Amino acid sequence: MTAGPLPRDPRDAQALRRPGPISRVRIREVTGGAVRERRDDLATEEPLEIRLTVTAPGAPPSRRTVAVTMRTPGHDFELAAGFLYGEGVAAPGDIASVSYCTDEDVAPEARYNTVTVRLRGDSLPDLPSLDRHFLTSSACGVCGTASLDALRDRCAPLPVSGDLRVSPEVLYGLPDRLRHAQGVFGRTGGLHAAGLFTPDGGLVALREDVGRHNAVDKLTGWAMLEGRLPLTGHVLMVSGRTSYEIMQKALTAGVPVVCAVSAPSSLAVDLAREFGLTLVGFLRGERFNVYAGAHRIEP
Amino acid sequence: MTAGPLPRDPRDAQALRRPGPISRVRIREVTGGAVRERRDDLATEEPLEIRLTVTAPGAPPSRRTVAVTMRTPGHDFELAAGFLYGEGVAAPGDIASVSYCTDEDVAPEARYNTVTVRLRGDSLPDLPSLDRHFLTSSACGVCGTASLDALRDRCAPLPVSGDLRVSPEVLYGLPDRLRHAQGVFGRTGGLHAAGLFTPDGGLVALREDVGRHNAVDKLTGWAMLEGRLPLTGHVLMVSGRTSYEIMQKALTAGVPVVCAVSAPSSLAVDLAREFGLTLVGFLRGERFNVYAGAHRIEP
Repeated sequence: MTAGPLPRDPRDAQALRRPGPISRVRIREVTGGAVRERRDDLATEEPLEIRLTVTAPGAPPSRRTVAVTMRTPGHDFELAAGFLYGEGVAAPGDIASVSYCTDEDVAPEARYNTVTVRLRGDSLPDLPSLDRHFLTSSACGVCGTASLDALRDRCAPLPVSGDLRVSPEVLYGLPDRLRHAQGVFGRTGGLHAAGLFTPDGGLVALREDVGRHNAVDKLTGWAMLEGRLPLTGHVLMVSGRTSYEIMQKALTAGVPVVCAVSAPSSLAVDLAREFGLTLVGFLRGERFNVYAGAHRIEP
Repeated sequence: MTAGPLPRDPRDAQALRRPGPISRVRIREVTGGAVRERRDDLATEEPLEIRLTVTAPGAPPSRRTVAVTMRTPGHDFELAAGFLYGEGVAAPGDIASVSYCTDEDVAPEARYNTVTVRLRGDSLPDLPSLDRHFLTSSACGVCGTASLDALRDRCAPLPVSGDLRVSPEVLYGLPDRLRHAQGVFGRTGGLHAAGLFTPDGGLVALREDVGRHNAVDKLTGWAMLEGRLPLTGHVLMVSGRTSYEIMQKALTAGVPVVCAVSAPSSLAVDLAREFGLTLVGFLRGERFNVYAGAHRIEP
């Protein structure tokens, strides 16, 4: 079940079980009539608890768990930062530190599944947007249009002029570059990838996860912790489909061009058109569809 | 943006905008050097708000929104029922009725995105498990083992003897049968599917959705509303990967065999082994891998 280095807990003689991105299991393979037993590599899926904390002078620290997400271990600090950024909870200057759990009351095997983000300031932020999945009351109703309206309170449309252009030839090359850079996928066949590219097709960063939203959060979290936000001069390429959630994360990170191997949903296209993003889908071989923002694709 | 029938609101002269599973948009297609404009079908993605209500004699109805999920419209009552069943909120006999919203204070375009489930009894159930994504406090920490422990409080392992067997030949045929029955995927290329099969490969029911967990919820919700739970004599086939969440839904529905076109996650395998489910992955052509419960596959 575990992979990767097994660090020593400084307060404990016993080594911690730190989950890695790949888990090794014994399986039975059936091909035609033949059956054989062999070892196989799986993408690890483990829950990650994201906690916020602040310390006011002279007061005990305030702490709140804001999310538990199923994810592939690795780049957990980036995932936490990117999640908080995408939800509008933390801006780039707000994070004082990120750390794994060191609480004595947390079981050792759970410590690497708990990340605490310490914010500057002395009070925890309001978290209204985090309650979107589990609202306590709502009279006005939900629909795609209302979802876009809510997003407009946080994000302005991207500028349509003066920003980057990408050539079809560069786009054709992105899926292969993404796939070749995917280390864990090659061994497990079971991970989503999100890659950040320059307008001429250079790979800037790549992250993988069992959850496609997590892969994008890891990427924007990396950019946030590196002081690179907004990502106005970049192209985001994802391995799967594009949904409202993926486009929302691209928008908040300021990425003007989003490309995907597979289809977009209707709401992904609506969001892209409403906020001025370029959305490319079915990017395979020497072909693709442009669903929004065709002005950024060179003729 | 809309498709499907446009029913008349009995209280309103204006027809309601009822979202359908397919949305039609104008796109630009780039193939090699050639560019052309054409119409394209997309899988619709719209939020669905799931509400619970109960009526106690002599008291006003109690109401609570328990979830907002992004989904493809269609089979919404089944999705709501299956979601509540999978989360342990409602058992088969608990649901008195399911209806779209008829509140005057809900905008017309949002009414088909709000489903109200009326429960028998006179008080709303506790909803502890629904808060798993947004816990308010947690000291014990999270990890895969703890997730399985929590599930064990609700579900017993499936029996290992006396239940169904499936032949490799039947399994080989499932992906094609699933794909051929997928109506919306064929037009959009953008939907997950979940199919319920008999042990000899007969298709019992199929549901599609932009969210793979929703496709399974629609299927189990269908079974629940039809009085067919538990699904002990059936095989579940999903179009994508298997994760903890998919396996949890299969377990609560009592499906002993889960097959997938792609890879499982480590926690999907752990869950299957812990609870006695059969888990098959990479089912393509005349080959597959068995990750758990090989005793249900005929030699």
